[in-house]
Amino acid sequence: MNAFNVSEHMQALGLQAKTAAFLMARADAASKNKALKALARRLREAGPALAVANQKDLERATAAGLPAPMVDRLKLTPKVIETVAQGCEQLAGMADVIGEIIGMKQQPSGIRVGQMRVPIGVFGMIYESRPNVTIEAASLAIKSGNAAILRGGSEAIDSNKALAVLVSEALAEAGLPVEAVQLVQTTDREAVGQLIAMPEFVDVIIPRGGKGLIERISRDARVPVIKHLDGNCHVYVDDTAEFEMALRIVDNAKTQKYSPCNAAEGLLVSASVAEDFLPEIAAIFAAKGVEMRCDPAAAAILRESEALGAVNPPAKIVDAVESDWYEEYLAAVISIRVVAGVDEAIAHINRYSSHHTDAIVTRDHVHAQRFLREVDSASVMVNASTRFADGFEFGLGAEIGISTDKFHARGPVGIEGLTSLKYVVLGQGEVRT
Amino acid sequence: MNAFNVSEHMQALGLQAKTAAFLMARADAASKNKALKALARRLREAGPALAVANQKDLERATAAGLPAPMVDRLKLTPKVIETVAQGCEQLAGMADVIGEIIGMKQQPSGIRVGQMRVPIGVFGMIYESRPNVTIEAASLAIKSGNAAILRGGSEAIDSNKALAVLVSEALAEAGLPVEAVQLVQTTDREAVGQLIAMPEFVDVIIPRGGKGLIERISRDARVPVIKHLDGNCHVYVDDTAEFEMALRIVDNAKTQKYSPCNAAEGLLVSASVAEDFLPEIAAIFAAKGVEMRCDPAAAAILRESEALGAVNPPAKIVDAVESDWYEEYLAAVISIRVVAGVDEAIAHINRYSSHHTDAIVTRDHVHAQRFLREVDSASVMVNASTRFADGFEFGLGAEIGISTDKFHARGPVGIEGLTSLKYVVLGQGEVRT
Repeated sequence: MNAFNVSEHMQALGLQAKTAAFLMARADAASKNKALKALARRLREAGPALAVANQKDLERATAAGLPAPMVDRLKLTPKVIETVAQGCEQLAGMADVIGEIIGMKQQPSGIRVGQMRVPIGVFGMIYESRPNVTIEAASLAIKSGNAAILRGGSEAIDSNKALAVLVSEALAEAGLPVEAVQLVQTTDREAVGQLIAMPEFVDVIIPRGGKGLIERISRDARVPVIKHLDGNCHVYVDDTAEFEMALRIVDNAKTQKYSPCNAAEGLLVSASVAEDFLPEIAAIFAAKGVEMRCDPAAAAILRESEALGAVNPPAKIVDAVESDWYEEYLAAVISIRVVAGVDEAIAHINRYSSHHTDAIVTRDHVHAQRFLREVDSASVMVNASTRFADGFEFGLGAEIGISTDKFHARGPVGIEGLTSLKYVVLGQGEVRT
Repeated sequence: MNAFNVSEHMQALGLQAKTAAFLMARADAASKNKALKALARRLREAGPALAVANQKDLERATAAGLPAPMVDRLKLTPKVIETVAQGCEQLAGMADVIGEIIGMKQQPSGIRVGQMRVPIGVFGMIYESRPNVTIEAASLAIKSGNAAILRGGSEAIDSNKALAVLVSEALAEAGLPVEAVQLVQTTDREAVGQLIAMPEFVDVIIPRGGKGLIERISRDARVPVIKHLDGNCHVYVDDTAEFEMALRIVDNAKTQKYSPCNAAEGLLVSASVAEDFLPEIAAIFAAKGVEMRCDPAAAAILRESEALGAVNPPAKIVDAVESDWYEEYLAAVISIRVVAGVDEAIAHINRYSSHHTDAIVTRDHVHAQRFLREVDSASVMVNASTRFADGFEFGLGAEIGISTDKFHARGPVGIEGLTSLKYVVLGQGEVRT
């Protein structure tokens, strides 16, 4: 009955993507922007058709007994569609970085040497549930002059197929190859294994999803992976921190939203201010129902704090265990530790953090500079909430993911992370002697 | 008898390197430069001691019947030592890029966001024969603030050990951790397998050697690899090329040296000039004994050429087979093909080249721009010899290798290729709303 051959399908997608990538690399900015604007328009026009496709996914998910929050994430509401349409228009309005040449300098031999930004080629994107990622990835592929092969979650297959049709139409309307963005047409998991093992067609894999998925892909991939593992982010409150600022930043970093990877999971407080600071932040956490997993020093301060005895609901103070320092809770839980000062804070972060985003609150210039330089994380902040670690907040204009790697792209990955720099040499007949 | 445990040795090197890397990342420019200058001085002073160690390697190599060119490459002559000593001094004179912050811009939220250049951490270097690479790698590690674990060729083990002692002494003299540069103390091949599979200690592997070594390492490594596969480089002579310039560049690219990876292995000539150009370049090649593997069109032109009939020694014209277009000869052999024009030249190169270095000789601005943009190679040149693809000629000040990858570093890799950019955020108490 099932005559569909996954391997043949993936090979065909790979070959078509490779061919399309060559044409996309040559495409001028006007054509790419035309495709992005056409995609925005078609998204808005296709509302009713998208709703029909999306309804199929939602019914299947509900019938399968998926939890309500997961069903919610599948929904292509008019608001979600408008947001991705606007995202396409914003990308269309951005300058095209492809072909830019940087650092052109004359060398002693007479040749001039610089670097030209070019697309990477073909990227494979593997993601879960939310169908709007299909449009985000497609629009980034178009703007960056790459080709993409998209493998969305099986729960969203009908929505993704409907969205992929709009992408193809928009590409065709702009005179660009429709194979520049292709959706894997099967939910067979074998397709993922194939996609990550085609170095002849695919230049880089970008997985978005749970830690298990990303570890599995990193282990098995035969091409480079832009990895985003976990976000165990910290805020360190230094001796000279302004209390009001520190309370605002720690509160925001932990409680503004619990689920993002850039939310804080650990609070470090300098011993010199711990007795004053901890009860104040704990009162805020208690009011919001945030559980506090404390080291002995922090626990002692909080359990003895009279102020905290009076809060309602009562503060949830729990003794931390070693594994707490590694944990990405993504929930109303935070680990708290008293440290001797900036040295111990840096040492704790470099040992336990996931190298995603860590912040210091301080007035001390030397401590700020040391923290910036010595904390080995993708984003390091002074006097700002970790929640800012995001491609849009960083001014990248778009974000395909956040890398916790040091290689190639680090931190929020925008268009530039989908490009490489090749050397260009301009001579007048020079030869090597 | 052999109580030496390779696995324990490698784990110890890894842990020590990781610790040293943290201190190296913090080291100031003055200390790093002091170590480099001390290393240069110690290299010059140690001449006699190095000669004794080197003699052991040479005697072992000769006894083992190694071919004379391979024995030559092992030699630590006074000239070789002076060259690497000068290399250390040049690095000491270069600006320190670690800690530099680029692109700091204010965002709508009020935060300022930029990127700081930091060391990658620990790199593992795997190389063959030439012991001077030990000093090149060590000095680049010191300047870039990384730690390095060096695995040299077994033939050079005594020389490498003697050199590694000088590096340790120079680090100690400058107050830097001696474990910042460590030499693997065994020639057991198991050590390589261990080194490439310690992601907890090693951030990147840089192999230098034959294609077989690099393919094996790329396949088995559990950390990123800065790969340099082969150099199948091309020169394309366009319709409007100035003949004198084209002859000079093609001759230089092929014959100035046969063994470097940036030597040309393929010549493409536009059909409109092939009848005039090919006999002239063939006369030069014939005089130098370069064998020409020709497609039917080129072969026909050359075999009918009266001019060529007269050269002495007689030109070696051979019919090319498909595999010739892929070949990195590293010898007095070149493949030659007549193409319809710039489009076919680009298509040939993108299909057969190893994406290392390719050049066009032309007066045509549009063809030059298309070649620069569309040829998918690490270095793309107009009117210059491919032999310029080199870290020193490109002004990088040093070179740890040449990458034929698109990911992270592409083309000649200098200090910057051993660094990563992390985001730094400077706030005044901003939080996310």
